Amino acid sequence: MKVPRGVFITLEGGEGAGKTTLARRLAAALALAGQPVLRTREPGGAPGAEALRALLLGGTVAWDPVAEAMLMFAARREHLAKTIAPALAAGAWVICDRFADSTLAYQCHGHGLDPSVWRVLYEVALPGFAPDLTLVLDLPPEAGMARAAARGEPDRFERLGPEFHARVHAGFRRIAAENPDRCVLLDALLPPEPLYAAAAEALRDRLGAPL
Amino acid sequence: MKVPRGVFITLEGGEGAGKTTLARRLAAALALAGQPVLRTREPGGAPGAEALRALLLGGTVAWDPVAEAMLMFAARREHLAKTIAPALAAGAWVICDRFADSTLAYQCHGHGLDPSVWRVLYEVALPGFAPDLTLVLDLPPEAGMARAAARGEPDRFERLGPEFHARVHAGFRRIAAENPDRCVLLDALLPPEPLYAAAAEALRDRLGAPL
Repeated sequence: MKVPRGVFITLEGGEGAGKTTLARRLAAALALAGQPVLRTREPGGAPGAEALRALLLGGTVAWDPVAEAMLMFAARREHLAKTIAPALAAGAWVICDRFADSTLAYQCHGHGLDPSVWRVLYEVALPGFAPDLTLVLDLPPEAGMARAAARGEPDRFERLGPEFHARVHAGFRRIAAENPDRCVLLDALLPPEPLYAAAAEALRDRLGAPL
Repeated sequence: MKVPRGVFITLEGGEGAGKTTLARRLAAALALAGQPVLRTREPGGAPGAEALRALLLGGTVAWDPVAEAMLMFAARREHLAKTIAPALAAGAWVICDRFADSTLAYQCHGHGLDPSVWRVLYEVALPGFAPDLTLVLDLPPEAGMARAAARGEPDRFERLGPEFHARVHAGFRRIAAENPDRCVLLDALLPPEPLYAAAAEALRDRLGAPL
């Protein structure tokens, strides 16, 4: 899929790391600076992908692990084709709450799915496509779980126990370490103001953002 | 996925070719001969896969072609893991109305999806797995469309026009020609009785079926 380019930014990290709040602040600041911006999220972000989100997160099916990864990437492909690519073609900056790194961290590092399955599905769904910048919000899993519980938002990922979330946390740190040109690791224990400042600095330094 | 083996038989072909009726007769005859048998169908055949069937066939989403193929194979993986493999492990003969050949015929031959996408998804979803026998019901598309219309069952595939169905028909014939060890081409213009007899002969000759 040939995607004309605006700028594609993803936010990654475990539960309760502050991705949604940070995405909202970055989008607002970019819009205030006159930059067309689209904020979206995964799984979801397009009608078909949202229907898959409901099946993946809200359903009662305990999916086979390979089938689950295929559904994640099918939703991602739909999201890219219907929402992300058209926005990038129109020159927008797109800020996406979770993307392919989350599938690698949760399904592979967390659940033990073979990473080669992830790589093959990535190439089928998103050939030649990658974020321009990924902000990895690094939060110790105990802090993330406490925040998620305080929000009163348990879901199937949040019920999986501390060892699982420790593996996911290590997975995100490894993804950031292995992709230094694309990823910036941010300390999500920071209060919202300095966390936003660190993210804005990354957007300025890496992408020339008007922030 | 290592699947202990009963016998896996798929029925393929265009709309109105008589797959469902033939599957029912074969299953009944095998059961009468004392053979444990499971009749199933695609897309579907397991709870998660049936939910995907509803999204694929009944929904209002015009899926991106690659996303659609990924959903078909996600449903197929779920069907294999939850329904087909356990039945085969228990020694059953499994008769399945449509399988991976339908995705190749409809999505690739019909809609022009790159067959290499089909091959990669097949290897991810069904590594090392294939039907023991595939009965390809060969029906000129005009006859198939007339039968489907008479049944009063239009769906999104049936509304795609004669050129599309001609490509699908040619695709099924090519699949049968390229896989002679697995496939038997049956003349679906035959009346039900001789069509069943030809299918039963194939099951006896190829699989030693007690028919």
